[in-house]
Amino acid sequence: MSVLSLKPRPEDVDALMREIGRQARAAARRMALVPGPAKDEALREAARSLRDAGAAILEANAADMAEARAKGLPAATLDRLALNPARIEAIAQGLESVAGLPDPVGRTLATFERPNGLTIERVATPLGVVGVIFESRPNVTADAGALCLKAGNAAILRAGSESHRSATAIATAMGEGLTRSGLPADAIQLVPTRDRAAVGAMLTGLDGAIDVIVPRGGKGLVARVQDEARVPVFAHLEGICHVFVHAAADLAMARTIVRNSKLRRTGICGAAETLLVDRACAGTYLSPLVTDLLEAGCAVRGDEGVQAVDPRVTPATEEDWRTEYLDAIISVRVVDGLEAAIDHIESYGSHHTDSILTEDQAAAERFLAEVDSAIVVHNASTQFADGAEFGFGAEIGIATGRMHARGPVGVEQLTTFKYRVRGTGQIRP
Amino acid sequence: MSVLSLKPRPEDVDALMREIGRQARAAARRMALVPGPAKDEALREAARSLRDAGAAILEANAADMAEARAKGLPAATLDRLALNPARIEAIAQGLESVAGLPDPVGRTLATFERPNGLTIERVATPLGVVGVIFESRPNVTADAGALCLKAGNAAILRAGSESHRSATAIATAMGEGLTRSGLPADAIQLVPTRDRAAVGAMLTGLDGAIDVIVPRGGKGLVARVQDEARVPVFAHLEGICHVFVHAAADLAMARTIVRNSKLRRTGICGAAETLLVDRACAGTYLSPLVTDLLEAGCAVRGDEGVQAVDPRVTPATEEDWRTEYLDAIISVRVVDGLEAAIDHIESYGSHHTDSILTEDQAAAERFLAEVDSAIVVHNASTQFADGAEFGFGAEIGIATGRMHARGPVGVEQLTTFKYRVRGTGQIRP
Repeated sequence: MSVLSLKPRPEDVDALMREIGRQARAAARRMALVPGPAKDEALREAARSLRDAGAAILEANAADMAEARAKGLPAATLDRLALNPARIEAIAQGLESVAGLPDPVGRTLATFERPNGLTIERVATPLGVVGVIFESRPNVTADAGALCLKAGNAAILRAGSESHRSATAIATAMGEGLTRSGLPADAIQLVPTRDRAAVGAMLTGLDGAIDVIVPRGGKGLVARVQDEARVPVFAHLEGICHVFVHAAADLAMARTIVRNSKLRRTGICGAAETLLVDRACAGTYLSPLVTDLLEAGCAVRGDEGVQAVDPRVTPATEEDWRTEYLDAIISVRVVDGLEAAIDHIESYGSHHTDSILTEDQAAAERFLAEVDSAIVVHNASTQFADGAEFGFGAEIGIATGRMHARGPVGVEQLTTFKYRVRGTGQIRP
Repeated sequence: MSVLSLKPRPEDVDALMREIGRQARAAARRMALVPGPAKDEALREAARSLRDAGAAILEANAADMAEARAKGLPAATLDRLALNPARIEAIAQGLESVAGLPDPVGRTLATFERPNGLTIERVATPLGVVGVIFESRPNVTADAGALCLKAGNAAILRAGSESHRSATAIATAMGEGLTRSGLPADAIQLVPTRDRAAVGAMLTGLDGAIDVIVPRGGKGLVARVQDEARVPVFAHLEGICHVFVHAAADLAMARTIVRNSKLRRTGICGAAETLLVDRACAGTYLSPLVTDLLEAGCAVRGDEGVQAVDPRVTPATEEDWRTEYLDAIISVRVVDGLEAAIDHIESYGSHHTDSILTEDQAAAERFLAEVDSAIVVHNASTQFADGAEFGFGAEIGIATGRMHARGPVGVEQLTTFKYRVRGTGQIRP
């Protein structure tokens, strides 16, 4: 991992970024050919280096934390920024767990034998150069870098200003491990400047050097990247996830899943934001569902029917149906059956993750077919929207785009493919 | 197929296009749920309507041709524009052959059983709304519309100004067939205005109504679309395809494949533009390879070694290595072995289709692994770069992007996927 911090810094951020892009492209060409075991050994070496550099990383983090406190950054940001020995160990273990995943490169995705004797294979290949733009969590340096590398890509990582020292210390340690293993030094580069112009340069694609951008951070960052990027983006802007309790739902199951979907963790993208309850069962189901949430400390905003259940329910506005609270707040609406639920989700949702709770298989199948979201769920929590829960091992994020990567983005989604055609002299008639 | 030509035309092309976008989005939602047999029957009905409307289509085409001749458009454009009964029959048969393809929607692409009992399936779903921008070939109306429809998408088709009457007549006929079959009238819409602002509007994505744009036409059109589109584009700008004759090539096979790759049809994107010959065999192979091409009427531009073979060879400039001739012209270079050939292709190629001719399996495998093109070929002609030759049945184009669709874009590539998660009450710990 080349941190570039010892190189003379060009006056021009743009020139610096183009140089980083050229180095990344060259590294990507070499990375694409590195065998799986060599990538895995390099990741394990990087984990060793990271543990060895624990003291230096904590020192850098202390400087970031002091500056963040002096700036008065909010407690949530400070928490995301903070490292300690346990977090460093978790980062190192994360690298080892990525090393343990199967190699996504070189998989044969399809094979066709043609009548003329040609054999055509679709084979997984790396995407190329992945640009990752993140904010305060310094661990993204290691997590995202490792996933990109495992998939045979080069990565350009741009840390948030507040985590710059911590990210640099992590990158330096990892880079030592990678270099010891003989991988190209530029396979993972951390942008060495805090200058925000570096982000703008990355969004242009650096003269074609960046193949895809992955933003990791809040809605403001994702919106800017989606709006300005001239290259594909793997991201979701919001997770406005719904749970629909259908007339034929099992009430006990519904109570458990609704609580879990909303409250297990409220700050993640797979947390439910809206509960839809079928009018056909609302008379008996609405009260226990809403009361559960209120008792658990969740604010409930509802339509008139929901407000009638409990005086603590406040009125939901049109805006509530479009809001990702990322907090212990839920909007609740009574809908006229399956079709109205699907209409609500298609109108207000963000095509992320939506769940139906029902014992009626036909209703479930219709929901799974008609709801146009990256992840559609029957009788389970929306909080399963996660690469590890899908068995992908780790994820660089969750995407709601319709192209290429959709849902959890793991190492497989960081590959593309090519066709290998093998002949014995065939010409086209 | 709604042609909209009878509707009052809004003053504002932008407003018209947004309305078309809204109708397409609504149609896409319905199309996604149409069963395969119903789509196939609709395509067969459209073929019947097209045959029935033969006279009207030829009349419209005659008007387009007269205008094109009056404008002095080049002979090649007139040829692309011209319809006759045989071409109309071929269009109708094309619709029937798309009807005969397997349904790409609903395929289970992967299934994972999780330790907690969740079943996760990755299932193919339509992309949504496909925008197709084409130029003079009126048959694209039917071909592209049919492929989009088969994959469960809605299509917005924008015909070139010169083919507008012909395209409208084809669209009207097809629309009658689709409507008779009960498919949404807006599943395939032809933009009813020749105003070029309609293209610009499509490139903005029409407020999110268009998921992907497919340009079908010359380099000028593709370059504009790639440059301006705010939505993903399936396309290739150029096909600078190479044939590399390796030291261990079979000379007889090489002579046949080089001629076919260059000359079978010179105007298609899979036609070879550059021949690379290994220095180790150039002494004996270069002369017959070059002479064959010259004798077949191909102009040869070469480096000094190539010029020495025959006085008819003219000097190749740096620019020649970057040029897609689409004509009976080839650039020829002697290179120092496999690695130099790969370097040349990576430096000057367009990542479309490149072929190595050799009896050395290790060299072939290295070429197939290292050349970063959508299609890499061993011992066969580059002209196999075609959806039909790949067994895809038909293609809407060939893409050289790294995301989603790469290589021939057939009906499978016009789909995306979603995850269906089936549980029995699971919550996330």
